[in-house]
Amino acid sequence: MPKLFHHPLCPQSRFIRLLLSEHSVEYELVEERTYLRRREFLELDPSGQTPVMVMDDGRVIPGAGPIAEFIDETCGERLGNHRLMPENPVDRVAVRRLLDWFNTKFFAEVTGYLVLEKVYKRSMTAAQGGGSPDSTAVRAAQNNLQYHLQYLGYLLSHSNWLAGDRLTMADLAAAAHLSCVDFLGDLRWNDIEDVKHWYATIKSRPSFRSLLADRIAGQQPAPAYANLDF
Amino acid sequence: MPKLFHHPLCPQSRFIRLLLSEHSVEYELVEERTYLRRREFLELDPSGQTPVMVMDDGRVIPGAGPIAEFIDETCGERLGNHRLMPENPVDRVAVRRLLDWFNTKFFAEVTGYLVLEKVYKRSMTAAQGGGSPDSTAVRAAQNNLQYHLQYLGYLLSHSNWLAGDRLTMADLAAAAHLSCVDFLGDLRWNDIEDVKHWYATIKSRPSFRSLLADRIAGQQPAPAYANLDF
Repeated sequence: MPKLFHHPLCPQSRFIRLLLSEHSVEYELVEERTYLRRREFLELDPSGQTPVMVMDDGRVIPGAGPIAEFIDETCGERLGNHRLMPENPVDRVAVRRLLDWFNTKFFAEVTGYLVLEKVYKRSMTAAQGGGSPDSTAVRAAQNNLQYHLQYLGYLLSHSNWLAGDRLTMADLAAAAHLSCVDFLGDLRWNDIEDVKHWYATIKSRPSFRSLLADRIAGQQPAPAYANLDF
Repeated sequence: MPKLFHHPLCPQSRFIRLLLSEHSVEYELVEERTYLRRREFLELDPSGQTPVMVMDDGRVIPGAGPIAEFIDETCGERLGNHRLMPENPVDRVAVRRLLDWFNTKFFAEVTGYLVLEKVYKRSMTAAQGGGSPDSTAVRAAQNNLQYHLQYLGYLLSHSNWLAGDRLTMADLAAAAHLSCVDFLGDLRWNDIEDVKHWYATIKSRPSFRSLLADRIAGQQPAPAYANLDF
């Protein structure tokens, strides 16, 4: 069974967990605290980031993008018309653009800050950079989030899905990041009904269940986090 | 003819220029200064980063990763046995991992700093953040570069190429980033003969010629920049 080195609140790892589950691939989760820079983990992949997938034969597949493409290339066909990466090169551009958008840009502007400040810092020592959340960084992330939610609203005003006319990897990546924001209590729906409706649809998929069951020692998720009718 | 929005010293744009040239795709270069946040450019792609490719029919392909996959999917077969993205999913992982490594990590730790501090800031106004290079940022980038060169040396001690036993996109991405460092005079070869030999091989490819001819107003490249026997 493949091993997935992850952290429960690493959004890119959550994206891969969704993908594996949608493809009915069984896997074993191994929790990794990347800030420890554990030697054995760095030997798997020197970038030192989660997620990293290790196959039964020892092959290492590091990074959300390469893992996602590998899952599609080796298991995508079994989903038939529901394949999560379109077949047409032009449609694939739209999906890959949004994978980069969420896993790189949204992470750099929103989830990266929130997870570092509100989660990782709680279990880091002072020497590792731990301590109280930096409220300036948290506010910056919350502010950036509003622009991203508006952009999601704009995309979803044209279609039920983010890239094209059916569910793709792009929706799963976006929902994985939003699920971290939601866990941490930073998601306010206000007047973004299209986004709320889209997120509720994805949140109710069976692949989402394991994410909704995630708990972190000493940290409760926001009250509506695991609620499908929020 | 496709248009490529780029900056002469944007390393991800240089990677795409190499790829297009290796696939004998003719294209038109349009210089974009992303820090101006020009409205028409943001309408092409809201991430506001180069490279962005615009096809004759108006379709927009933004970002080095999506452009590279699109070029391979639409033109890769014509390279036959010299295709720059391997056909096997496992071998593709090795290439994609290194594309992320250079276009994201190396950029965040080396080329992003150097190009901002030494190039963009010269043509930015004070209000845009322009001015003298921040010597702390430049030194940090130069220091980070040494670790990356060691890693390149490690990879090239096992093979003539970075991913597998033939030239791939990974080599072109790495060489594109090194070419920016070289232009700016920050590349010292010292005792990394394997890397120097590998870079010399790629630098002598016809696809590299347009990069070596790049000049920036008011800024001379380092003396050996365009020299094939350096």
